[in-house]
Formats: sequence, C-alpha cells, structure tokens
Amino acid sequence: MVSDARVTFEFDLATAVAPAGEGLWSARIHEGWDIHGNANGGYVMAIAARAMAAATGKAHPVSVTMHYLAPATAGEVTVRTSVARSGRRFSSAAATIERGGTAIATAVGLFADEVPDGPGRHHAAEPIAEWTPFEKSLPRPASAAVPELMRKLDVRIEPADAAFASGGTGAPLLRGWFAFADGRPVDSLALLLASDVFPPVAFNVVGEIGWMPTLELTVHLRGIPVAGPVRCEFSSLLVGAETFDENGRIWDGSGRCVAMSRQLALLPRSAPAPG
Amino acid sequence: MVSDARVTFEFDLATAVAPAGEGLWSARIHEGWDIHGNANGGYVMAIAARAMAAATGKAHPVSVTMHYLAPATAGEVTVRTSVARSGRRFSSAAATIERGGTAIATAVGLFADEVPDGPGRHHAAEPIAEWTPFEKSLPRPASAAVPELMRKLDVRIEPADAAFASGGTGAPLLRGWFAFADGRPVDSLALLLASDVFPPVAFNVVGEIGWMPTLELTVHLRGIPVAGPVRCEFSSLLVGAETFDENGRIWDGSGRCVAMSRQLALLPRSAPAPG
Repeated sequence: MVSDARVTFEFDLATAVAPAGEGLWSARIHEGWDIHGNANGGYVMAIAARAMAAATGKAHPVSVTMHYLAPATAGEVTVRTSVARSGRRFSSAAATIERGGTAIATAVGLFADEVPDGPGRHHAAEPIAEWTPFEKSLPRPASAAVPELMRKLDVRIEPADAAFASGGTGAPLLRGWFAFADGRPVDSLALLLASDVFPPVAFNVVGEIGWMPTLELTVHLRGIPVAGPVRCEFSSLLVGAETFDENGRIWDGSGRCVAMSRQLALLPRSAPAPG
Repeated sequence: MVSDARVTFEFDLATAVAPAGEGLWSARIHEGWDIHGNANGGYVMAIAARAMAAATGKAHPVSVTMHYLAPATAGEVTVRTSVARSGRRFSSAAATIERGGTAIATAVGLFADEVPDGPGRHHAAEPIAEWTPFEKSLPRPASAAVPELMRKLDVRIEPADAAFASGGTGAPLLRGWFAFADGRPVDSLALLLASDVFPPVAFNVVGEIGWMPTLELTVHLRGIPVAGPVRCEFSSLLVGAETFDENGRIWDGSGRCVAMSRQLALLPRSAPAPG
C-alpha cells in the first residue's frame, strides 16, 4: 500500500517499484511513455533510480548512468539492485532492469539525502543563447512520432531550433521547457526524464527524423529545482561518423543550473554519409 | 603466461588482469600510480576496462562509467564482471573492483571491436583556445603531490593554465599534453587514464591544491588516436557549492577528437565558501 501523496501523479504511478525479495523490485514499464513502442530512456532511468533510492534509503539521484541494452517494451519488469557502498553522505548502487532473463537496461547510481543549494563559486553554465519564455512558447504537439508521451508532458521547443521538423538542417542545438501536463512538480527524479525527452539534437544535423538509440546516458543533479517548469538546452560537440554526444543543461525558474546530462547515441544507419 | 607484446610497457603490466573463475579476475593496483596512496581514477578505470574487454571479448571501451567508492590503495584486488548483453556490434558489461569484500570502484562499460574513424558530420569540438605545441611544452615535474605518477607519464601543462601552482586563481581551464614516459602508444585504453591524470580544474577556482575526490567519471571513445602524444583540454561549467563537473576533450595529432570525458567531483571541505 503506497501512501505517498505524489502517487496521484502519472509519472509516480508509472515509475513505482515494489519490494519483491532481497535486492529485487517489481515494476512495470507503462504504456504511453514510449516512442514507437520503446520506452523513453529518461523514463526507464527513473524506474531504476526509484529502485536504487529505495535500496540505498537515500532520496536524490546525484549521478545516474544507464546503458540501454534491449528495447523497453511495455509490461512487467524486475529491477535487480545491489548496494555497493552505504555512506553517511553518499550511497552507491547498481540496478539492472530485466524481463525473462534478458537485461533491458543497466545502471549505476549515487544517491544522497541532501543536495547543497548554495551559490556556486564559478558558473560558466550560461545558456548558449536566450529563448522564448515558457508562457509565450507553444507546446510540442502530439505527433505520429510521439503519439502519447507528449500528452503526459508539457514540452515546449524553441521554434528557431526545430529546423528538422520542416525537413531542414541546422546547428545541433535544441532549447525548450519541460513540465508535466498534470502539474506534477519537477523534482530531482523528474530531471532524469527531462534529460532525455527532447528530440535528439542530431535531427538538425542529419536533417531527418529517425531512430537514434541512446547507448549511454548520465545525469548529474546539481541542485533541487524550485517550483515551475525547467528550462532545458541540448547541444552536441561532435556528430561523428557513427555516434554523437548530446549535452544537456537544465535550469530552474530561479536561473540556477540544477542538472547536467550527457549521452552517447547512435546515428541512424540510413543517415546520409558525411561530406 | 601473458604473451601480449605490449606487456613490456609499464601501463600494461599495471593494468593486467588474469582469469580467476567465472566472471572473476585477479589484478593488482600497483604502487606508483597513486596520489598520496590513492590510485589515480583513470588508472583504476583502465583495470576494470581490461577485465570488461576480456569478459566481452571486445577490445575498445566505447563508453565507461566508474563510481569511486573507497580508497584504491596498492595491492591485490578482485574484479567481478558480468556481461549484460553480447551483441554483434556492441557488448555491455559491469565490473566491480573488490578487496576483502569491500567494493573499491564499480563500473559499467560498452565495448566494440571497431570504432568508426570517418569524418564527422558536425564538429563543434574546437579547443577553447590554442596552446603550446608538445615539443615546446615543459613536462610536469614530479612533486610532493604526485611523486611517482608523473615519472611514468609525460604530462605537459599549459603554463597559462597553472595559476593554482603559484597560489593564484583563474578560470577552470586546464590544457596540456599526454604521453607515456616509456613510449607506450596512446591507445583507446590509455585515453581512460588521460581523462583523469591532469590536476582538477577546480584548483584554479578555489586557489588551493587539495583532495578533490572523483564521484563519477565517464569516458566516451570517439576515435582511435594516431601515434604520438594527445592534446587534452579540461574545463568546468559549474564549480558549485559542493561539487564540480570537469569536462575533458582529447585530440590526437591529426586534430581529430578521439575522446570526451566528464566527471563529477567533490570540492575539498576546507575550500573557502563561495562569495
């Protein structure tokens, strides 16, 4: 019996884990958090993070890295956790999401109960460029590519960064806003989701929309966000021959950088060869 | 009996792993790869990577993430590996380095036999600023802080970036060169070491030299380096209240970006509070 008040929000229901034995948790990859049947990587990371938070007894995912191994289709899964170190300040765990003996995703995570909110000594994390305020941005419409996921979220994309949407090309830069459609607060867990819920920045470089599977995603929590939507910026340093990096930074409404992410993802095989 | 020709180089000897049962490898954290008794994080990652490469049967560490859990003092260790997925192109493994039942470090890694070397589609990974050529740079001297490690390596630091060395402060930027003192080629395994062997960039911000333990380090391999020293650049986006990120990029002699790294590390408790 879950008594957490947050359980009324869809994201909390969809990431719930229940104890199922020593280091085992039962969970369910819910319908509607997917792109063409494969659950969003930030959503899958959030399930593993909840299991690791429960296993370590510490609330906040300070650093989580996930490798994606097999398509995460909807249905029951088992999360296998092990706690490598229980510290006063930080605890470290590993988690593997499995179904029928196949590993779907594997993760390591560092958890803490407190995330210092003081001012930084040095802050070069200014956005690459300013962007349209949340209130004046347009929600990303549900589309054939993301039929249902965008109904659960309120993701807004800077129009100037959406060259790919009209078949054009541009810089690998994507700015926007992230909030939940049902008003769930954007807490530390939600930042894992926000880190992977925007279209891949490489869309703008290859000029096409295709499957660009994440190989590895790491999210660092750098602060606890204040209430309200968070501002997100994703860019790439190197869209290479086969892979690209995508670097995310997330700011809360007070202007503080609350998370950084990096992922290594595969370019689609169909993408035109580099010139 | 190890017959690998590379075994004549010190780094190969110091990262050797030997099968010790199903998913078990015996290894030794060698003397002289440490800072004040705690082995360098990139060196420890390289030991785990060799065990994971052996376990997966794939040579190159495409993406490795390590969490550092306990001081890595010299001596025998066991590396426990598990292969989460064996694919045609990529295989994924986990590794934990243990001694006497205590986990010293835990890692996840993605391995491949080929790393595409073609030109990139988009390359924003230009260095922040140019720096002194290798031949005209001065080797980093062995010092009280790094007595022996710097004798094994040929690490050269851009003088303009070493404000901390004279008790000053500056930007969190550190450029330099990396090679082995014994002429060992800088291969994909060596890039893991290179990613963590420079002084922390936060030295320049807090204006003091202290222990800044790495919580998490991720290295992405983006190409196989050509022969010769590699050029390294480390910077931080946010030196915060408690943690800082350090972002590394490594270029080979042909000017190609061959690796990117990011770590989350702790500031020393003694560091002056932010203003």
